Amino acid sequence: MNTNWNFPTTIWFGAGRIIDLPLSCQKSGIKKPLLVTDNGLVKLDVFEEVKRILREANIDFTTYSSVQGNPTEANVLKGVLHYNKNRHDGVIAFGGGSALDAAKAIAFMSGQSRSLWDFEDVGDNWARAEIDGIAPIIAIPTTAGTGSEVGRASVILDKRSQTKKIIFHPKMLPGTVIVDPELTLGLPPHITAWTGVDAMVHAIEAYIAPGYHPMAEGIAIEAIRIISKYLPKAFNNGTDVQARGQMLVAASMGATAFQKGLGSVHSIAHQLGAIYNKEHGLLNAILLPYALKQNQSAIEEKMVYLSKVLELKKQGTDAIIEYILQLRKELNIPHTLKEIGINDDEAERIGKMAFKDPSTPSNAKPLNEDDLEKLFKAAVNGELNIL
Amino acid sequence: MNTNWNFPTTIWFGAGRIIDLPLSCQKSGIKKPLLVTDNGLVKLDVFEEVKRILREANIDFTTYSSVQGNPTEANVLKGVLHYNKNRHDGVIAFGGGSALDAAKAIAFMSGQSRSLWDFEDVGDNWARAEIDGIAPIIAIPTTAGTGSEVGRASVILDKRSQTKKIIFHPKMLPGTVIVDPELTLGLPPHITAWTGVDAMVHAIEAYIAPGYHPMAEGIAIEAIRIISKYLPKAFNNGTDVQARGQMLVAASMGATAFQKGLGSVHSIAHQLGAIYNKEHGLLNAILLPYALKQNQSAIEEKMVYLSKVLELKKQGTDAIIEYILQLRKELNIPHTLKEIGINDDEAERIGKMAFKDPSTPSNAKPLNEDDLEKLFKAAVNGELNIL
Repeated sequence: MNTNWNFPTTIWFGAGRIIDLPLSCQKSGIKKPLLVTDNGLVKLDVFEEVKRILREANIDFTTYSSVQGNPTEANVLKGVLHYNKNRHDGVIAFGGGSALDAAKAIAFMSGQSRSLWDFEDVGDNWARAEIDGIAPIIAIPTTAGTGSEVGRASVILDKRSQTKKIIFHPKMLPGTVIVDPELTLGLPPHITAWTGVDAMVHAIEAYIAPGYHPMAEGIAIEAIRIISKYLPKAFNNGTDVQARGQMLVAASMGATAFQKGLGSVHSIAHQLGAIYNKEHGLLNAILLPYALKQNQSAIEEKMVYLSKVLELKKQGTDAIIEYILQLRKELNIPHTLKEIGINDDEAERIGKMAFKDPSTPSNAKPLNEDDLEKLFKAAVNGELNIL
Repeated sequence: MNTNWNFPTTIWFGAGRIIDLPLSCQKSGIKKPLLVTDNGLVKLDVFEEVKRILREANIDFTTYSSVQGNPTEANVLKGVLHYNKNRHDGVIAFGGGSALDAAKAIAFMSGQSRSLWDFEDVGDNWARAEIDGIAPIIAIPTTAGTGSEVGRASVILDKRSQTKKIIFHPKMLPGTVIVDPELTLGLPPHITAWTGVDAMVHAIEAYIAPGYHPMAEGIAIEAIRIISKYLPKAFNNGTDVQARGQMLVAASMGATAFQKGLGSVHSIAHQLGAIYNKEHGLLNAILLPYALKQNQSAIEEKMVYLSKVLELKKQGTDAIIEYILQLRKELNIPHTLKEIGINDDEAERIGKMAFKDPSTPSNAKPLNEDDLEKLFKAAVNGELNIL
């Protein structure tokens, strides 16, 4: 079933909906798109299919795929050069979080005369941008996790400082998103698992962030409910189109909700992604139960309600943690950071860096550098009970 | 606590936030606003307060208040004349559903060269509009019900055909909404009750509409939960600022959710509003349990979940109906249309008219003219069990 939605942006949903990509270019006024994806996806059949659809519609395009996981400034700037040399007039962003973030940053930077880091999400830096210099964006997610397709920011790695920085502008929100579950049928189970729990983390951190935003909370709760129902199905049977579709929608919802704020899971995952170049979703999935435990005193009431929504037998933070530990086990996600090769040698530095992360002020409970160091160490060593 | 949100439009929330109206004019580029309200509100202190704030900020404005309940084409066109004669450059919409709808229609029509009914929400009539001719709108709701402040349409009465027509354009969505619970502290209990149940009807009909829109459903469920908690409080103690604030937000959420669709309650209430000039919220509140009963076979699963969310002892459609009957009793809302002076003499005509209403196709269960006639008769005579 196909359907179109209008908030937070225009979303075209449906299995096989990728066929409407040429129509979407037309509606967005894009005649010569730059098709951006990452260095893995570019080799897959699903990407060939997208190129075929554009070719058959006689759309003049080129592709750019020098995008790695945890994309860098160089990935973006090389893409901007490619965009301008080939006189493109819009960007099609195709892929998971890395490809979408890089593509959005390329579209944004294509007509700016300042450096990328001038637009880091601090104060109203975004207001410096030349609005006419931002290219229109069509986003096509191929994982159900990041939600970057409905977001107004990109996370880009600054190699010099080994930190991930958030580049923000309201016009980085893609004008149209094509959500097509068929594109995700070939995702391997471990990517399904990591990205799926990433979406759940977005929704949970948004829900427990301390601001007042009932609309975001309603979206977050429903996203968590959908993920709890469909993530195991998508994991166990990758070709379950319904489960794939539900997961994609829930991921968009998670990202819509986190306008309200994120929390300590992201504060730490951003640093570990930058230092150890590990997958963002995997890091979030490992960190989640530890962060909930540390936040317990601030979130108990909400966890009681969430337990009811998820129809758990017991209710409260411990019940939710137990549920998540069980879910992770089903999804073959490790319990500790140690298991993926991260030790706590750099704990103090990571605590300090995490404290400065933009997600920290919206954590459910106010945390200082020591708290974050402690949280990181617990996740390295699997010590839920010390928090 | 003040807070700003960005979907579906910019919302400035906070007790006393009306003080930011001049700032909002500035941000919207409005130098000479037309302040629109209805013929009742214009006499109240709360309206004097708004005028005082504008005057103290040296903002040049005039007021227009020839707006009645169930506003008419004449109310709109006279306002357009007033707007253009006085060379305004934007509209401040202040009031309940009638004032907001009329004000939005005035802003929309201020620069059009076609008639109002040319923009009835049929097909893509809206695309006929001259976009530069639509004035910017700041909306300030004074009831927690309509949600018109976050909507892209106005309901206007066509007196010749005795029907309410929906005028739609995406740019009729107000650019900024000021949600200030202090403005609603003086609402009398019966208006609090009618408008509050109206908001609940929006959320329930959106939730049970058959489309696939999980984001709208998440917002709807949370809106219902908030209303169930705070409507009795706002009704019993009109000066409870927290309850008033929660109700305003929930009303916005109900209207955001019904992008997904409405149902038979609205199909019939629109006709009764047009023919008998009764309050929309009151009509909706009376009709709701009958419509749920008629939809029972199509909504049982959703009603089970909603019962859990509302923490009812029993679960399912009958439990929700029982809950609503109890809530209506607490709020002194009558059980039958007969009690407010509507008999079933015109039942056949009303069934036929309701069938053509734009809310009918999105009702949970497909209904024909006879079904709607039956629903209306049941609500006149209080016969829940015949449905």
